[in-house]
This record gives sequence, C-alpha cells and structure tokens, in this order.
Amino acid sequence: MAHDAPVSPLAPKKVPDVGPVAGVRFATAEAGIRYRDRTDVLLLALDAGTTAAGVFTRSKCPSAPVEWCRAVLPHGLARGLVVNSGNANAFTGKKGREATALTAKIAAKALGCREDEIYLASTGVIGEPLDATKYEGVLDATATRLAPLPWIDPAKAIMTTDTFPKLATAKVKIEGVEVTIAGIAKGAGMIAPDMATMLSFVFTDAAIEAPALQALLSKGVTDSFNAVTIDGDTSTSDTLLLFATGASGAPRIADAKDPRLARFRRALTGVLADLAEQVARDGEGARKLVRVNVTGAVSKKSARRIAMSIANSPLVKTAVAGEDANWGRVVMAVGKAGEPAERDRLTISFGPIRVAHEGARDPAYDEAETSAYMKNEVIDITVDIGLGRGSDRVLTCDLTKEYVAINGDYRS
Amino acid sequence: MAHDAPVSPLAPKKVPDVGPVAGVRFATAEAGIRYRDRTDVLLLALDAGTTAAGVFTRSKCPSAPVEWCRAVLPHGLARGLVVNSGNANAFTGKKGREATALTAKIAAKALGCREDEIYLASTGVIGEPLDATKYEGVLDATATRLAPLPWIDPAKAIMTTDTFPKLATAKVKIEGVEVTIAGIAKGAGMIAPDMATMLSFVFTDAAIEAPALQALLSKGVTDSFNAVTIDGDTSTSDTLLLFATGASGAPRIADAKDPRLARFRRALTGVLADLAEQVARDGEGARKLVRVNVTGAVSKKSARRIAMSIANSPLVKTAVAGEDANWGRVVMAVGKAGEPAERDRLTISFGPIRVAHEGARDPAYDEAETSAYMKNEVIDITVDIGLGRGSDRVLTCDLTKEYVAINGDYRS
Repeated sequence: MAHDAPVSPLAPKKVPDVGPVAGVRFATAEAGIRYRDRTDVLLLALDAGTTAAGVFTRSKCPSAPVEWCRAVLPHGLARGLVVNSGNANAFTGKKGREATALTAKIAAKALGCREDEIYLASTGVIGEPLDATKYEGVLDATATRLAPLPWIDPAKAIMTTDTFPKLATAKVKIEGVEVTIAGIAKGAGMIAPDMATMLSFVFTDAAIEAPALQALLSKGVTDSFNAVTIDGDTSTSDTLLLFATGASGAPRIADAKDPRLARFRRALTGVLADLAEQVARDGEGARKLVRVNVTGAVSKKSARRIAMSIANSPLVKTAVAGEDANWGRVVMAVGKAGEPAERDRLTISFGPIRVAHEGARDPAYDEAETSAYMKNEVIDITVDIGLGRGSDRVLTCDLTKEYVAINGDYRS
Repeated sequence: MAHDAPVSPLAPKKVPDVGPVAGVRFATAEAGIRYRDRTDVLLLALDAGTTAAGVFTRSKCPSAPVEWCRAVLPHGLARGLVVNSGNANAFTGKKGREATALTAKIAAKALGCREDEIYLASTGVIGEPLDATKYEGVLDATATRLAPLPWIDPAKAIMTTDTFPKLATAKVKIEGVEVTIAGIAKGAGMIAPDMATMLSFVFTDAAIEAPALQALLSKGVTDSFNAVTIDGDTSTSDTLLLFATGASGAPRIADAKDPRLARFRRALTGVLADLAEQVARDGEGARKLVRVNVTGAVSKKSARRIAMSIANSPLVKTAVAGEDANWGRVVMAVGKAGEPAERDRLTISFGPIRVAHEGARDPAYDEAETSAYMKNEVIDITVDIGLGRGSDRVLTCDLTKEYVAINGDYRS
C-alpha cells in the first residue's frame, strides 16, 4: 500500500470466504520493481485449455500492458497472468513495449507455455521505464510456490491506494456440475496514474469458449464497473480480465445465450457488481457511498448520461460530503447533461424523501427530516425525468478534503 | 457577499479605473430579497435606442430570468436591467415565470419603458419562490438615484461567493469618435446553484445594430467565457449580456464584419477575456491560475476538448494544488478526452520545462527545476499533440481543500 490511510468506513464488514477455483493457482513475490522488501508481483497460472476475455480502458494513450493484452486476446487462450504494482509501464514508449515482451517471455518460461498465452497488468507510477530484467529468476522461483489458496494474497498483492482488499465469489451449477467464480479487484481513485488504477481479474472453472466468454464479460461490465465513477478520470491502465479454466468438468458451452448459462450469467454479473461497489466504497477519501438512480429518461443511455453527470459533479459530491441535501445542485447536474429533460417534470428524492416535484420545491419537504437522512453512510439520490421509461443506476462516493489531500499531497 | 473568505491571492493588484459609458446609469438598493440590510439589487437604465445581445447557459433546466431574456432578446432593444442576488429564481416553475413578469412590470414603470425592454438576471438559492412584490416602491425609489459612476458599485452589488469585484474596460475610436466599453462580472464556482453563478454585463456607447452586436458577442465569448472552467459544473443561470447605447455619437454600424469595427472587436474580445480571467482567478478556493495550452491537435475543436479534459480533471487540479508537476495525470486526461492523440507523439511541458516527449519522459527532465516552477502563482501546462495545427487555450484553477470546504460546508 502506498498510503497508511485508515480503512474506509465504507469497507464491507467481512471478507468473503473464497474457495479454490479448479485450474487456478497463484503466488506472490517481491521483485523490487519500485521499492525493496514489498510484495509487488502476482504470478497466476491457469490450466491448459483456459479461455480468456477482457475489457480495457478507453484511453487513447493506453499503457503497454493494455496494448499487450489487446494483442494476445484474439488467440482466446491463456496460461498465465503477471500483475505488478509500483510501475504502470505507461507512457514509456518503445521501452514499455520491450518490457512487456520480456515479462511475457520470462513468465512463459516459468510456466512452460507460449508467450502469447501470458496476460499482463501493471499499476503504479507513469512514465518511468519498467526494468523487466528484475523478473529474471523471480518468476521461476515464484512458479515453484503456486497454490490454489488463499485468495486474500493476490487481492492484497494488487492493492495501491486501496484501504481494503476486494474479493467476491459465487457458486452455481451448470447441468448439475458446481462451478465457482472468484474475483479480485483494486481501485480507489477511478484512477490516479501515479498509483491507483482499476484492475480486476475474475476466474471460473466453468468451460466456456472464448467468444461466448467475451460476450458475457462485455455485457456484465455495463452495469457494474462501467457504472461506477470516483472522479470521472480514466486510467491509462484500466483492465478487467475473465478467465474460464473448464476444470470443473461442466459441459463446454459455445454460445453466451445458451440457456444452460442463465444462472452463471446472473452469478457473474453479481460478482462484477459486488467488486465494482467495493471500488466505490474505497473511493479516495470517501465517507459516503452514493447511489444515483435515474428513472423516466427517454432511454437507458440517456439515463446513464444524466446519472453520470450527477455522479461526477464536484458540487453534488461536496454537498453530500457536507451532509447537505442540495437538490438545486442535482437540478444543475441534470441540466448540464445535455439530455432531454424538462424542469416542470422533474422529481428529485433523497432516500425516501421527495424534495422537488414538477419544477419546484416539494411543498411537503421537511429540511430537518432530510438533514437526518443525509447522516447515513449510503445515500440514494433518485431523479425521475418524467419523459420516458429509461432508467439506470450509477455508484459514486462523496468528495471530501481527504480526496484533495490524497491526490494533492501525494508527492509533496 | 455570502462568505467572509479572504480575497483570492490571485486577485488583480488594482481595480481598473472605469469611466462613464454614455447612455448608461445605475443605482443599487436593498430590496430584502433574502436577507435584510444587504445590497441585493442593481437597477441599470439604458438610453432609448440601446441594442442588446446575449448568450446564456446551455442547461436544459434554465432559470426563469434566462427564459425571460431569451424571450425578449429578439426585439433587440433594451432600456433596463435588473439583477438581484440572494435568490436565483431557478427551478421555481410557474411562480418563477410570474416573478419575472412582475419584476419587468415594476422596472418598466420605474424607467418609463416597455416590459419587453427590461432584461433580468438572478443569482442565489435555487428552488425558493422569489417574491417580486418586494420590488414595489424599491425600484421606483432607486430610479431617482441613477448615476453614471462609480462602476465599482454594480460590480460589488452582483457578488456572491466572489472575493473581489470584477471590472474591465477599454476605449477605442470608431471613425474618429471615442467609444467606451465597460464590463462587470461575477462568478467563483463555474457555478454553485446555491449562491454562485456566472453573470456578466458589458456596455458600450458605440452604435451597433442588434444582429451585428449579437454576432460580435457570440464570437467573442468562444475564447473568453467559454474557455474558462472552475469545476465543469454549469449554472442554470449563466448569463452574459452586451448592450450598445449608441450615445457616443459614433456612426451606426449594421454589419459585424464592417472594417470600421476592427479595433472595437479586438477591444471587446479583450474586455471579455479580462473578465473571464478574473472569474478563473477567483475560483472557489483557488491558489493558482492554470493556463492549459494545447497545440498540434487535428482541429481547434479537438484542441478545446483536450484542453477542457485536462482543465476539468480533479487529478490534474489536485496535483497543481500540491505543486506537483504530475504529467502522468496530464497524459491520462489527454487519453480520456476521446480525441485523436498518439502516445508516441505527445510532448508535455510545465512552463518552459519539457517533461515528456515522444511517448516517454524527457531524458533532460529535472525534477528539482520543475518543482521550483510549480511554486509559481500562474502555471502553464502545454501539450503538443503532434498530429495537426489545431490549438486552443483554456483557463482554470487548482482544486484545493478550500474548494471542498466552501462547497461542502456551505449549509452545515
């Protein structure tokens, strides 16, 4: 961890008990990427036949590991994953590409597979060359210690400004065979290229062919990771990978819409949503989790844009930090979203309390009751646009002085 | 003023000496709109024949005064302006429309003109009905005290969270006749619907027909007020009005492209840019003025979007507050803008110091020298995209704990 910040008050009360995922083993190590005597690398081995899917940052300046993953993903097969903290290997040009190639080469040798079956992710400082020669020997040694448990180790190994490890799991049956899903994530600012970034890795022992796995992941991310925002900033390194080893013995499925996958789809979406909520709960400096619900928009896409406009508004987020049910700022954020909205049809609620209705303050609005609601740890802001049937929900957190301290005092 | 905050360290060292504008007289009063014993209304009278132009918030939920101004603007003529603080008359529905109509009626009677020759602007709390009957008698009495000086009075009367009054002026000749331009502005957050909002009123005694005046204003705003951002939030009430009385005796001009207006155009743009920069210098909690310069983009529009992405990034703004030349965050903000950009062609400088070049850290980059530069009050961030000839500049300020305090502790 980069900061010795206290654990977020919004952290889940208990860490889930995550069982082994057949075909997945891992170990962590100290490679000295940026600091000595610090666990900074995770090596994860996947059984032969594992399929892979991924979604990545939309940044036009992605990191070298993101470019590497995008390049190998079309093969659809994976045998290993290497994640390091301390250096993001972003904005490192030709040297960055050389570092990813060398890392994959060393990892492939350690795991006995092809280089294009190795996936990579890095988080840490931007613009510093990553010296991949530090992996020489280290990954070989790490590969001798691979084990299927405990999952808390890889979850901790990928933390940076996170104040708690993020894990989620689910078990479902496919044609009578139990399969496990296990996921880990890191992320605290929606990114701070210096240290934070959103990374998540999800594993299952179900047997799903790569195109179907990709379809499941692309759909599952829409209302989970893509519906969370801390500060509207986007990392050069954001990476979400999903691997299916097939080692459960469940039947191999080739179509994402196969009815045998119905429960699996829901379980996967649940794991992704759980991990994404944990990221919001660990937002830098966060004291409150904010759920922005938009209904009655002209479409889901429109609802998402309005919800994001509210969730990213510094004025809305500072008001929540101040426990102020400032619906005027919500009106402002709806207005600036640029989506169809009419003042005289808007309804705004904080939790169960309707504060504004039909273009004006609700006559029944009680400031004392609303102030009491704003002391809660989880705040629901609900806006009904009154125009259509599009709805959506986005998670965020409040904007506190601690956010500024964490991100402004970082180097000084 | 709502806050007794100390004057921004970025305030101009002296208040400009603004002379009278022929055909413009004003007076301020206490109407008790929200608080007693506080100057909260400005009445401004314009000679017969004055033309008007305006640009307004792009919010889909504009305030009632914005809707009023948009409705009367097509007439193109103006005789009066009423500005109040304490209540924004926004999100007030039918009552809000009634309040604007009544205000215009009372003002028209006080000034002896038509109601559709009255312009209105309001700033203050959102969602509270504005009791326009409070203007009864007050505006009549105020109209007996109208005077052409001193301009500091209206500049102060429209302040809310502003820490200093904002004035700018210029004099130029049109066909040998001297004309004056005088402008005032308020704004500190790019908006906080509770109190702050960007309002600006600019006056000249040049004689320019309304369509030409509108063309001059619409063009002039692009690189001044539209190139400033404090927090990316947009008021329901943002209003910029330009009035030309024609009382200087200069020839009447009907075409914005008339060569006789060349100097006037430049002077007007200068006044608008000066006022806009003062708004950035009074950004809530600001300690540093940040000029984001983008060159080498594929178009000016693309350069503007990239510059805005950098200027609105909380991570870039907190880094500047921490005096950290964190160019990794600048790369991140370029990447998330969604505009054409290639990592390996980017060049990033802080002031005169080139920190990154061709997709990697500049080998000559000296951290000590850069840290020394970051202690300056005005910080230039310059990004060359390396793809084309589009360039632009946007002004912003840093994001400090004081911003969060001002906006989070506002009601509590």
